[in-house]
Amino acid sequence: MRLRNKPWASEKLNEYPQYVIARPEDHKGNWKEVFGNLNPLHIEVGTGKGQFVTEMAKANPDTNYIGIELYESVIVSALDRIIEADIPNVKLMNVDAKDLKEYFQKDDVDRVYLNFSDPWPKNRHEKRRLTYKTFLKLYEDILVDEGEIHFKTDNQGLFEYSLQSFSHYGLLLNYVSLDLHNSDFEGNIMTEYEEKFSSKGQRIYRSEVQYPQK
Amino acid sequence: MRLRNKPWASEKLNEYPQYVIARPEDHKGNWKEVFGNLNPLHIEVGTGKGQFVTEMAKANPDTNYIGIELYESVIVSALDRIIEADIPNVKLMNVDAKDLKEYFQKDDVDRVYLNFSDPWPKNRHEKRRLTYKTFLKLYEDILVDEGEIHFKTDNQGLFEYSLQSFSHYGLLLNYVSLDLHNSDFEGNIMTEYEEKFSSKGQRIYRSEVQYPQK
Repeated sequence: MRLRNKPWASEKLNEYPQYVIARPEDHKGNWKEVFGNLNPLHIEVGTGKGQFVTEMAKANPDTNYIGIELYESVIVSALDRIIEADIPNVKLMNVDAKDLKEYFQKDDVDRVYLNFSDPWPKNRHEKRRLTYKTFLKLYEDILVDEGEIHFKTDNQGLFEYSLQSFSHYGLLLNYVSLDLHNSDFEGNIMTEYEEKFSSKGQRIYRSEVQYPQK
Repeated sequence: MRLRNKPWASEKLNEYPQYVIARPEDHKGNWKEVFGNLNPLHIEVGTGKGQFVTEMAKANPDTNYIGIELYESVIVSALDRIIEADIPNVKLMNVDAKDLKEYFQKDDVDRVYLNFSDPWPKNRHEKRRLTYKTFLKLYEDILVDEGEIHFKTDNQGLFEYSLQSFSHYGLLLNYVSLDLHNSDFEGNIMTEYEEKFSSKGQRIYRSEVQYPQK
């Protein structure tokens, strides 16, 4: 994703504490209080401009969503969407995915979404891929038992890698589509990136994986 | 695969006992004697017209191969190839894959190849797919510990299904290619079917899976 310098971004994020969680570490273990209900919490790691998480929140009012995005200049676009949507069940966190355990503890999260994550195609960058084993351990440490990861990408190499990585971690592949937009999967909500690349005829890959019963 | 009635097929298979194993049940546990060496044994389940298994045997003289095919009218074509190749490390068995345990015991087989298996696309035929869990159990019961299955298909639905089936059985995905002919995989030997469909631009999917350490 192209990053533009937006010096005003930080200030804008601070102006909307109802949407952008200011001190997420304060809510560790208490996320139900933040949303004021007992609904499940789904997080999107690498939420980008926020179309997916916002549309999911609109379509599923009984689920709480948090979009996590490292880049201020990107997450401000997600904030604009959320301001416009004006719904209570979606929030943002401007933090680094590798620090997830500072903000969430075991059982805080019911599902993790990974959409069009950076493929980091070079072998020497394997550890940065959001489906690398250390990330799978991170998600496990904050998810409920038998929690799920739902993963989409147009990047063939990342999908191949991720299937292998999921398998070696012991995750169960519950669903695999090698051509999502020509499958019978219903209710797909597209990311901005997905709209752009699928309209060019690019295949979209999708999987649902689950941590096994202990 | 189209089946032609070939009433002479049975007789021809009987004429070449050096290539078509007449009473495979007699060799259970003693396959090294059949080949007269201690080389590993790889079997192809559903060998069709035998191009793959014959070319693999030519390319890998230190591995023994058995092509297994149910249909007489198809396996006679494989026999023709093997007669022409005239090499000692490839043989055929005209038996049903579901009876593999009548012919092989634990540790007899080092690798199973499944190439372009019948996809049996209807849900009610799931049990017939060669990657259904009962078949994965069959292979486990005749393979060495940490034995492998190498699987190729052009059928997207069968590949998606098989990845899920492998995963739920506890197999490790060591290699996944979602477009074999545009990958960096070297030494691919094509089946007749693969030549035909890949020349039409059809993607070929491939995976290597392994039974986990006990």
